Formats: sequence, C-alpha cells, structure tokens
Amino acid sequence: MLLDRIQQPNDIKKIDRKDYDALAQEIREFLINKISVSGGHLGANLGTVELTMALHLSLNLPEDKIIWDVGHQSYTHKILTGRREGFDTLRKYGGLSGFPKRKESDCDCFDTGHSSTSISAGLGLVKAREITGGNNTVVSVIGDGSLTGGMAYEALNNASRMDSNFIIVLNDNNMSISENVGGVSKYLNTIRTTDGYISLRDGIYNSMLNKRYGDAVIGAVRRTKNVFKQMVIPGMFFEDMGITYLGPVDGHDIAAMERALKEAKRVNKAVLVHVITQKGRGFEPAIKHPARFHSAEPFDIKTGVPSKKKEKANYTDVFGTVMIKLATRNEKVVAITAAMPDGTGLKRFHNIFPDRFFDVGIAEQHAVTFAAGLAAGGLIPIVAVYSSFLQRAYDQVLHDVCIQNLPVVFAIDRAGLVGSDGETHQGIFDLSFLSSIPNMHIMAPKNKWELSDMMKFAVNFGAPIAVRYPRGQAYDELKEYRAPIELGKSEMIFEEKDIALLAVGSMVKTAVTVRKQLKDKGYKVTLVNARFVKPIDTDVIDYLEKKHTLLVTMEENVASGGYGEKVVDYVLENEIDVNVLPICIPDEYVEHGNVDLLKAEIGIDADTIVKKIEVWHKKK
Amino acid sequence: MLLDRIQQPNDIKKIDRKDYDALAQEIREFLINKISVSGGHLGANLGTVELTMALHLSLNLPEDKIIWDVGHQSYTHKILTGRREGFDTLRKYGGLSGFPKRKESDCDCFDTGHSSTSISAGLGLVKAREITGGNNTVVSVIGDGSLTGGMAYEALNNASRMDSNFIIVLNDNNMSISENVGGVSKYLNTIRTTDGYISLRDGIYNSMLNKRYGDAVIGAVRRTKNVFKQMVIPGMFFEDMGITYLGPVDGHDIAAMERALKEAKRVNKAVLVHVITQKGRGFEPAIKHPARFHSAEPFDIKTGVPSKKKEKANYTDVFGTVMIKLATRNEKVVAITAAMPDGTGLKRFHNIFPDRFFDVGIAEQHAVTFAAGLAAGGLIPIVAVYSSFLQRAYDQVLHDVCIQNLPVVFAIDRAGLVGSDGETHQGIFDLSFLSSIPNMHIMAPKNKWELSDMMKFAVNFGAPIAVRYPRGQAYDELKEYRAPIELGKSEMIFEEKDIALLAVGSMVKTAVTVRKQLKDKGYKVTLVNARFVKPIDTDVIDYLEKKHTLLVTMEENVASGGYGEKVVDYVLENEIDVNVLPICIPDEYVEHGNVDLLKAEIGIDADTIVKKIEVWHKKK
Repeated sequence: MLLDRIQQPNDIKKIDRKDYDALAQEIREFLINKISVSGGHLGANLGTVELTMALHLSLNLPEDKIIWDVGHQSYTHKILTGRREGFDTLRKYGGLSGFPKRKESDCDCFDTGHSSTSISAGLGLVKAREITGGNNTVVSVIGDGSLTGGMAYEALNNASRMDSNFIIVLNDNNMSISENVGGVSKYLNTIRTTDGYISLRDGIYNSMLNKRYGDAVIGAVRRTKNVFKQMVIPGMFFEDMGITYLGPVDGHDIAAMERALKEAKRVNKAVLVHVITQKGRGFEPAIKHPARFHSAEPFDIKTGVPSKKKEKANYTDVFGTVMIKLATRNEKVVAITAAMPDGTGLKRFHNIFPDRFFDVGIAEQHAVTFAAGLAAGGLIPIVAVYSSFLQRAYDQVLHDVCIQNLPVVFAIDRAGLVGSDGETHQGIFDLSFLSSIPNMHIMAPKNKWELSDMMKFAVNFGAPIAVRYPRGQAYDELKEYRAPIELGKSEMIFEEKDIALLAVGSMVKTAVTVRKQLKDKGYKVTLVNARFVKPIDTDVIDYLEKKHTLLVTMEENVASGGYGEKVVDYVLENEIDVNVLPICIPDEYVEHGNVDLLKAEIGIDADTIVKKIEVWHKKK
Repeated sequence: MLLDRIQQPNDIKKIDRKDYDALAQEIREFLINKISVSGGHLGANLGTVELTMALHLSLNLPEDKIIWDVGHQSYTHKILTGRREGFDTLRKYGGLSGFPKRKESDCDCFDTGHSSTSISAGLGLVKAREITGGNNTVVSVIGDGSLTGGMAYEALNNASRMDSNFIIVLNDNNMSISENVGGVSKYLNTIRTTDGYISLRDGIYNSMLNKRYGDAVIGAVRRTKNVFKQMVIPGMFFEDMGITYLGPVDGHDIAAMERALKEAKRVNKAVLVHVITQKGRGFEPAIKHPARFHSAEPFDIKTGVPSKKKEKANYTDVFGTVMIKLATRNEKVVAITAAMPDGTGLKRFHNIFPDRFFDVGIAEQHAVTFAAGLAAGGLIPIVAVYSSFLQRAYDQVLHDVCIQNLPVVFAIDRAGLVGSDGETHQGIFDLSFLSSIPNMHIMAPKNKWELSDMMKFAVNFGAPIAVRYPRGQAYDELKEYRAPIELGKSEMIFEEKDIALLAVGSMVKTAVTVRKQLKDKGYKVTLVNARFVKPIDTDVIDYLEKKHTLLVTMEENVASGGYGEKVVDYVLENEIDVNVLPICIPDEYVEHGNVDLLKAEIGIDADTIVKKIEVWHKKK
C-alpha cells in the first residue's frame, strides 16, 4: 500500500508521480473507512485530497506554512504529516483532533476552528518572515464559503499591500456547509462558468493551467492580461484589490496545481490561486447530501445511512418545530441563520416560510445587526446560532440590539460542551458574555417542553432575550413540571431542605442524578430549575435560605460572569446566611471528546458533584 | 437667517432652491461656531452638509429612513430635523447626543456608534418593509473608511440578493479617521481619478450626473454599460456583486445628488450612489489636519488651535513614548492599530519604525488574528485599541490568541468612561469579556509610571496579556509607589486597618480621595492598588482579612465578570470572614457627558463611595 510509505512530512515526495492517483484513491478509502466509524468532516476532506497532495509536493514542511481556514479539511494534511495512526482516535478524548493543532504537530502552524481567519493569520506569518528575515512560503487555504465572513475581506484588503510573496488558495466548491449565498458566490460562479477557461461537463474540469497548455499558456495569458486583463482573466475582483489572480485550476489535477503553485511562488505580492474542487468527491452519498456529510455521524459505507438510528428528538429538532408554530401564529416572526439552515433546524421553516427566512452566509456580525434592523422595522427576528459562533457578534449584540432594546430573540444552540469538535466549538462562554450586556435577558430550558415554552415567551417578550440549549438529544423527563415561564422566576422541582441544587438548563438533568445519589446517602435535597440566568431569581434564594445551609449552583459555562457568580454576589451583598458551592467549567479550554467523559474530566458530572458536596459537608 | 426657517423635518423643502448654497454656508458656520465651543466631530460633518441636504430634499422623514454609519456625521441631519437648539448642550450630560439616537427623534431610525453597521441595519429595515408591505425608502450612508470593516462587506454580499429598492450612499472622502488603507481604498481611488468622469482640480468636481449633462447622459450611460459596463462605468466592484452602481457624484452639488437619488429610487434592487465629498470642507484647519478635527476638542475658530492648552500628558502619550523605548530595546516588538494611529498614540512609532507598524484599517477582527499570526511567527505584537472597539474581536482574542496561548499584548485605551461620545464608546465591558477567556491576563495601571512598567512587563510576559487604561490625562501622583510588577500581585499603597479599598487602575486616584474623606471622618483605611484583574491577588485578601472587616472593590467596569465578582467569589468560596462592598458600573448603558458628572450619576465618584461605606458601617 502506498500509504504505508508515508510516515513523516515530505515522504510524499518519494512517491512516483504515476502513483499519485492511486495514492489519492487510497487516501479517500482510508478517510471513508475511518470517518464511517468515528464520524467527522467527510465532504470537505474528500474534496481536498489532491489539493493537499499538491501543496505537500510543492512545499517543505514544517519550514513552509499552511494555514487551513476553519481547519476541518486538514485530514489529508494530517495523514501526509505522519498522523495516520491517530485516525483510530479521531475526535475522541485524548486522541487526534479534527482540526489543526500546534501542540499536535509542528506542521500545524496555526490553530483554526471558526471561519475566515486564515488570511489574517497568514499575513501575520508573512510579515513576521519579512521582519525576521526568513524565506519560507506561507499558504492560506480558504474555502469560498469562508469568503462570506467579513474578516476574510478585512484581511484581503490588507493583503493587497504586500510586497513579498503570500499565497492564498481559494478552495472553491460552491458550498459553505449548506449552500453559498450572496454576491461573492455569484461572482465566483461567473468565473467558474466563463467560456474558454473551464467546462463543467460530467464533473470533469479542464483547467487553464492543465497539462495540454502548460507554462507557455501561462506566460501568454500573463502578458495578455496586462492589456485587457478584465476581459481575459476573470479574476478582476481580486486584481482590483491588488492581488494577483491565478486560475481557475482543476482541484483534482495535481500537476496543474503544482504548476500554479510554482507560478504563484514567483509573485512578489499576494497571489490568489483559484482551485475548483468537488465537495465529497469519490463518495456518492457525500456528493448528493453535502450538508449531512459536512460533519457526519458514523455511517454505513455502502448506503451512506447513519449507523445509529436517532431514537429521540434533539433540541435542534424541537426548536425547528416550535419555530414553525410560532411563525404560523405570528406573521411578524422571521428567522435568521449564518450559513447553518440545517444545523440550527431551520430547514423546514425555510421551506414553509421562504420569505421570512434569511441565510446570510458565514456572517454572524451582519446576522445580528440585520436582525436589529428587522426589529427596528417592526418584526420579531429569531437569530438561530451556535453558542461559539455568537462570540463573533458580541459587539453587535451589545450595541445594535441591546442599546436600542430591540426585541431580537437569540436561539443559541450547541450551548455547553459539544464534544468531538473540541476547544473552538464548546459553547461555554455565552452566559458570561451575554450577562455583561445591559438589557439582555437569558434563559435555559431544562427539557424539550421548556424549550418550546421559552421560545413562546421570548417571541412575546419585546426586548432582547436569549434561549440557550445544548447539542444533542433533548431531555424528555420532568414533563409534569411545566409552570408558566415568568421573567426572572425559577421553577421549584423537588422541595426538601438542607441542600439546594440550583441548576441551569442542561444541568437540571445532572442535578436529578446528583439528588438521587445524595438522597441514597441520606441527605435532604431541594432541586430548583434556575430557568433565568439574567436576571437571576433572587426571591428563590431568599426563600431557600430559611431551610438550607448550602446552595449548589450548576451550569455548563465558565465561572467568570456566569450564573454561580451572580448567586454568590447576591448572597454576599445581602448578607444571606447560606453557603454557595458553584459548579461550573474551570477557567481553561476544554478539548474534544465524548461529552460525558469531558464532564467527568472537568468535574461537572454527577459523581464529582456529589463528592464535592460531601467534602463540603464533612468540613462543616 | 435661513436656518431660522428650519424648525422641523422637511422644512428644508420650503427653502428656495437658489438659497441652498447660502443655507449650506449657514450650516457650516453654525457647526464651526458650536463645535469650536463644545468640541465634537467637525471634519465629517463639514463634509456632509450638502449630502444631508440632498437626502432631506429627496426623502420624506420620518417615513423614509436614513441610517448613518458610525453616526458622527449626523449633525446636519439633526439640524434639519429641528434639533438646532440642542447644539448648546451637544455631547453634554442630558444634552444632545453626538450620534443618532432613536430616543432623541423619530427621524433617527437606528442608533449607530461603531463602524460598518449601516448596510446590515438598512437591509433589515428593507426586508421589514417588504414583509409588512410598506413603501418607504431606506438609505444607508456609509463612509469609504467604514468599508474596510468586514461586516460592511458581509452586508454588501447580502444586499446583492435584493429584489426591492435599497439605497447605499457611499460617502467617499478618502479618509477614515487618519488615512485609508488597503485594496478597497486603492480601488475607490481608481474610480475617483478615472478620466472623463471626474477631474480633481482646485477642489472642484465635475460629476457625471452634473448640470451640464443631466438625465440624457444618465440614460445613455445606462444603456452603454449593459454592453461594456466594465469599460464605461468604473464601479465594477459593486456591479460584480449584483449591486447597481451610480456615480461618482459631486457630494457638494446638491442638484446632482438629487438627480442621482431620484435615479437610485427607481432601481428595484440594491443601488450604490458613490458620492465624493471633502472632509472638513469650508474650514481650512480641518482640511489640513483631518485627524485632529475628526473628533475635536474646543478650538479657536481663527487659528484652529485648541482653546485649552494641554498641561499634562495623557495615557495615550505615555503609551506612545514607552512603545518607542520598547521597540528600540527589542526588535521583535511590532505595533498594530485598526485605523487609529493618532488616537492610540502610535504616530511617532510609525515614523520611527515604519516596517514594524501596521494600520489595518477599521478591522479589529483582522487586527487581532493578524497579531496572532505575527506572534506565531516569533514576534511580540502590541495591539493598540480602544476598549469598546475590542468588543468587535472577542472571538478572535478567545480563539486565535488565547487557545494557542500566543504572546500578544493588548494595549487597551479608553477603558472606563470616555465621556462625551456616550453609550457606544464607554469602555466598561473589557474586564468582563476578557476575564471569561482562559489564558488571558489583565492589568490596569494606577498612574503614568505604572503604565510604562506594565507595558515592559507585558512585552516580556510570553502569553496573552492586556493593559487597560483610561481616556485622558494621566494620573501623576503616587510616584513613589513603584514596586516591580509581579504576575497576580497587587501593590500596598497605604496600610491601616478596618476598611480596605482595593482599586483597579483609574479608581486608585478616586480611592485616594475616598480614603482622605474617610480618614477625616475618623476611619482607618487601607488602600491597595489591585494591578491585576486576572488573576486577582488572593494573597492580599488573605492578608487583609486579619485586620479588616470590609473590603471595598472599585472598578470602572460592569459588575458581571468584573474584579469585584472575582473578589466576592474568592471570599465566599474560602469562607473568609470579611465583608465585600463592590463599587462598579451598574448594569445599564452610560450616556454621554462629562466623566465626573457621569461618575456621580452612576455612583462611582468619591463622595458616593464614601456615603456607601458609611451606610454599610451604620448597619453593622
């Protein structure tokens, strides 16, 4: 097997050129086999096999630098840098990350996870090279979807001023996660379909830089474009900005890409190599269902069908359903997503209310201010967004929504630990950054019914409000506890004495287990569903004081600015005679892995919480 | 006086066309007179007098909507909507805001303050109009500087998909605050200087849409551009995105702009009207010194010289000086600003170390990730940024700098209350949002010498670290207290017993006054300079416990996630027998006004703090 000969960086250069296609085929089979078991980002990785091979053939790693935008397409890069064995532990706790990690390999020069950062980081590495007198090559690989993110454009704007080499590879598959939106996509599409450069027939591309034409054509085109470059080279968007444009190049033709990269290296400024790839290439199900295979659950290789049948609804499904109800009842309800119509559960909403659904692309900042504009225009916008992605729009929530106190609803999915995507995707900061914002209100539901109730409450609330809920299966117990939602009011689930658990959202489920274990040990335990993180229910604290000696706050969020600190603050400020034990995420990044394992590791699982409470009790 | 006839919205339409120039002249004189006394954004407002007049002549307010990007150029709009009297209290506490405010007038349809939001907000208003069946006109007015901000581009990308009218006025003065950077600026410059469209001679512009050519030419050009539009209309950047381009139009020719706006209204999609204006027009000093008159202190009208001589250095000056020292000693030190070379004090650094200085434009997200790239490349980047603007890059600090634990230094100016710019510019959230971030370290200096010492410490620290300091005059007392900076260690200033003041940065000065007043009343008071907000000095709390009954934390930041909460947390978690009284900014936006007045209003001035401490004492 050719892959056995790839044990460390640059080993690919020892492979015979005629074997490249076979190697690509082996890599694809390896990826499909591994990801069908582990789950992971399949489509993007199948699309970039040859591109990654061409980059590794053209560069010397680790001296040369590749920055992978988002980073979920770096699997082939990991294989080619000697991390093939790691795929048995891919995205598992302690195992190989699904994203580039500096601590994993010196061939990973910059950690990524969120979109549109690679050009900024690459520019930094280039300027550092200039200042320190290095002469390595820096390549940022960015997808066309990531180009809808504003910071990529901020970086392009700066890349235009380069006076040394900087290669930007635009990996263009006309896809972000679902489908690209907007003017840039339209523009790239024009390039892709320009006669004479590329013909899109039966999935086979003919590149301007392909084998038939070779270097002579490149030279000719280069000379030509100095005269009528707008007419000849369909990359004026970039040329206008002062960035040399090369392409389009067939992203599955290794030799063509090698030639383009060789050419690109000669340019003493920023140069964009436009590479056309096919997401999911080599695996029919991934080509047909790009959204499902973007970040896939384990699946059956023959059929592409997920191995595990979903038994229970997840919170995303529940949200999707309630959104349709809300929009049916109230014609002012509109929905916004930043390139996540599937991930946030808005696909059905989109089908039923196409005119009230807005996919703005990977553009969280715009999404939030656009929602503020919709609200200022009299509508009730729901921004459906993952917790970690909302970090991108902190200033827009703070300014454009909350200063004006506009009725924008934030439906925050993937809040809390998300598992296998790791550090960059854990939603463990939203309670903190949202709590700092005046006029903001924050809720978290204990189970699926409460998510519905809270969404209904939010839509009628008339001011900025967030509902945050975790990734995955929706908790479907405690159905009988369904008191109406009231601003700033918690919900008493089990009332006893001595110890009171005040749990936020997903931690109610954990609290039920904690309570059971404590009761087995003879403790009396009250359980309160906090419901509101801002404002917190202070009445319940006053009430609990009388019969309890310990309040245990529980949240899937860091300590600073979270729910626990608010309770502690209130207790201390009002000199309430009760102790508080805050359970929260420690002040550190949480790696990838199974969520239950992670919770145990950082001490927010039921067993550890019970132990902490017992330790506290023994001290008394 | 013509201005006397402008008492409410649309009154301008009653003014005779021949008097427009005279009215513009009156407005300019009014602005210069008022701003010379009150201070304020002069240059941008002088540049947009005719543009604002043309908009008001072409629209019906408040039904039609104008969104002013950033909003500091809305003074003429305020005059034309009947708020002329308000200019006597401009930017004063309780007086007229220097930015658009919905609560101030129904002609202000969307609050702004930070750059690049207007297209997003405008799109929201347009979509709301479509859904609710309205037929008003929505105009976003954005400067060319604001176009370097990524979210403007995210919005443009979405504007390309419109199927009803949306007018974007690009107010192009080739300036952001200092000078524009990057590819977009270069591109706009190409347009501005295209032969046959505009001649820039002696400050007089001839517009494509000017009086001599009129509607016939417009029609001809429109027909032509369908054939060779790239050659004929120099706005391909926008046309490529699917946005109709009209212009360039002379931004001081009211009739030309009226015609262009009339034309723009007819387009059933997004249309960009490119207007060329001159920042500072009509006032020589503002034309010559655009940065100084961007946001001017009160000045002498004849000379343009500031009325009040600056007697003491401000923190920005101190920072600028220490940066030169640091860069001289350590060649790895580089500096980054997002369009604020003057405001952040980096102008001299730029002159001395041009290759180690990076002005990235209004692009905070890029600035931070670019810095992370520089650090990954072995340099020590200092990101000099205003506190409120860093809100834009929360995710980039959290991900690109701190996950990788890269040695990026954040020099955070305008931290705390800034005064006359109001809500959007108060730097009262940075301690909160930075505290939530693992691996981040946060310092605040008590006086000018400590700012220098902390910058030196930060540059040698080797991990993410922030130094936050306030706007304005640097505190230059307590010179004799200059113990070496140690990670997480506070500084004892005056040690007594009973009451301990733990003050962060600027609040040390206030604490000195508080202590004096309390001592006059017979209290014993210790004063600790906190120095570090993350990590806090817990040793000093353990130490203070022995002789003190009350710890008073003092910070210019909101409560949630701030210094006080950290102290409270530590005290409660470790069951330390001491009370804590947190002094901080309440959970609300703080308006514009004199900083001392604001502090009194929100209860963080010395007098109020003394009262709070006495109240607490009497309860005991």
